[in-house]
Amino acid sequence: MTDLLLLPGDGIGPEVIAEVRKVARVLTPDLQIAERLFGGSSYDEHGVPLTEEALAAAKAAKAVLMGAVGGPKWANAPRDKRPEAGLLALRAGMEVFANLRPALCFNALADASSLKREVVEGLDFMIVRELTGGIYFGSPRFIEDVPTGGKRAVDTQVYTTAEIERVARVAFELARGRRNKVTSAEKSNVMDSGLLWRQVVTDLHARDYADVELEHILADNAAMQIVKNPKQFDVMVTDNLFGDILSDISAQLTGSLGMLPSAALGEAGKPGLYEPIHGSAPDIAGQGIANPLAAILSFEMALRWSLDQAEAADKLYAAVIKALDSGARTRDLGGALTTAQMGDAVIAAL
Amino acid sequence: MTDLLLLPGDGIGPEVIAEVRKVARVLTPDLQIAERLFGGSSYDEHGVPLTEEALAAAKAAKAVLMGAVGGPKWANAPRDKRPEAGLLALRAGMEVFANLRPALCFNALADASSLKREVVEGLDFMIVRELTGGIYFGSPRFIEDVPTGGKRAVDTQVYTTAEIERVARVAFELARGRRNKVTSAEKSNVMDSGLLWRQVVTDLHARDYADVELEHILADNAAMQIVKNPKQFDVMVTDNLFGDILSDISAQLTGSLGMLPSAALGEAGKPGLYEPIHGSAPDIAGQGIANPLAAILSFEMALRWSLDQAEAADKLYAAVIKALDSGARTRDLGGALTTAQMGDAVIAAL
Ligand SMILES: CC(C)[C@H](C(=O)O)[C@@H](O)C(=O)O
Ligand SMILES: CC(C)[C@H](C(=O)O)[C@@H](O)C(=O)O
Repeated sequence: MTDLLLLPGDGIGPEVIAEVRKVARVLTPDLQIAERLFGGSSYDEHGVPLTEEALAAAKAAKAVLMGAVGGPKWANAPRDKRPEAGLLALRAGMEVFANLRPALCFNALADASSLKREVVEGLDFMIVRELTGGIYFGSPRFIEDVPTGGKRAVDTQVYTTAEIERVARVAFELARGRRNKVTSAEKSNVMDSGLLWRQVVTDLHARDYADVELEHILADNAAMQIVKNPKQFDVMVTDNLFGDILSDISAQLTGSLGMLPSAALGEAGKPGLYEPIHGSAPDIAGQGIANPLAAILSFEMALRWSLDQAEAADKLYAAVIKALDSGARTRDLGGALTTAQMGDAVIAAL
Repeated sequence: MTDLLLLPGDGIGPEVIAEVRKVARVLTPDLQIAERLFGGSSYDEHGVPLTEEALAAAKAAKAVLMGAVGGPKWANAPRDKRPEAGLLALRAGMEVFANLRPALCFNALADASSLKREVVEGLDFMIVRELTGGIYFGSPRFIEDVPTGGKRAVDTQVYTTAEIERVARVAFELARGRRNKVTSAEKSNVMDSGLLWRQVVTDLHARDYADVELEHILADNAAMQIVKNPKQFDVMVTDNLFGDILSDISAQLTGSLGMLPSAALGEAGKPGLYEPIHGSAPDIAGQGIANPLAAILSFEMALRWSLDQAEAADKLYAAVIKALDSGARTRDLGGALTTAQMGDAVIAAL
């Protein structure tokens, strides 16, 4: 049985996942690891970005760790064969509805942010993004010809009570182990799905989580507040599309974009999907200079949340901090280490 | 015939619009000014946030200047009677499809930003947000009961070629008078409307604006880049929902949120709708401490774009800069001036 399925993917994906392999060999030598093609590299080989066999392997593993997908090479592939379509199919197929995206500012890197040090230093908040619903998956969706000329495109945002409730539950549970505060973001002033979102979160809070502080915020204001004073937040829960944007802003302002992992979780007992939040970075792919820490920290999350290896996770997290504190820096952090050297630095610190 | 219709609205709206009146009396004494209730204050008086008579007056004026709408008092008003519904009805009724939201960093205030001074100093970019389409106005939209329990909410994002083209045209025209670069933001990797958006902008560019530099960016990446390095942008064009969020981030990072005006324009010759981008700020309403400069600068935009008074606009803009340079600061800018005193400072500088 596979413990961890690796999906290195495209661009810098294989480079950073190679470092995870190195780390795993030292830290968790007994871990059963398998690997599949994914994204553009799967399309090139199999004609689809995610084969049924790869999806089955993902669902049968305890955890899945992907690198990154996409790149200009596949920009003109048919819509449903694009690397991104494979990623959406993986998320939907694994039913990982709760995407945990930490916005963590590593002290050693606080000056790399475009924000003032005092605004981001010590920052540690978590965005819980709904990942398998909303406008990403709603139907109808189409582009049609308009009789009077031109075209008309439609996308549909759909949310049910059950979808909102299960992801909100994850946020409340997380908050209990943190600073006990949940902020729920939507546009209930203009969207019916936002109205339902707010109602369901309010009801769930009253029913099961009255001990947790709950605050509602409009998504546009949330974006502003994240830029203005991110430390006011503990856990923020939001829908798929707002979560895409809000978690990217949050990541960016830590100044540690190349450092941030993420986890996508489904029902208890189902495998989690782990991935660095950075993309495939085609501009630097193949040069061996990408920062592998986001992938390594995604492995750390996998150990903790899906592989029942909290102790190994603690060791790994400490090693990453130690490597950083001792000055290890890849190019994105203003240093000169290669991808492999950064992996070595973590192993040395283990 | 009315030149300028004032819609003071709710919260701090009437306070900041009062300063515009004072300024107009000195700067443009011949301007024909009228005023109507709007938002919550209209609901309280007339049972609707925008009466038909007020909308007709707005369409008959040369320009409309609003303060702000909304507040906790009306949070439980029926959905279609809420102050925000009045604002959406005004935008749709006036057909002001292009919302110009400048992100300007006033040098005197650069230190007020949560971003490092060097990241925002001298910043001057413009977001052109589509304002009368997209998920704000698409149908169907509803919340329904699900047979198996709970509810299901649906919103619809719709865009046609014509809607995209006319707003993109505004962006290209603006760019020609600026630094000649347009960035178009969407999620063409996951939304059909994003795909159409990208196609239409690309085609229009090739057809009529090949002299302008055009760049496409995914909306999540746009949000990141705005936080990372906003000075890379000149004009950014995007849809209603992304524009709501991206323009709020941009405004926030200038550190001058209480300073920023906006203009919403329709077809040439039709009246424009001008408004400060800040909200009704119920927390400080009635205290006379709100910053009136965003409203005064919205008046400046109205003079320039709808009232054919570029000279008066130049004078007013210079007076605002002079007042700031001489140290005039309301509380949001770290000073102690009241709303009225800031208005007086501008008049003194005129
Ligand atoms: C690649 C893309 C489909 C994806 C998304 O929009 O969800 C990405 O931006 C992300 O946030 O993981
Ligand atoms: C008040 C609200 C309906 C409005 C919007 O979402 O458009 C506001 O946020 C804005 O940006 O003008």
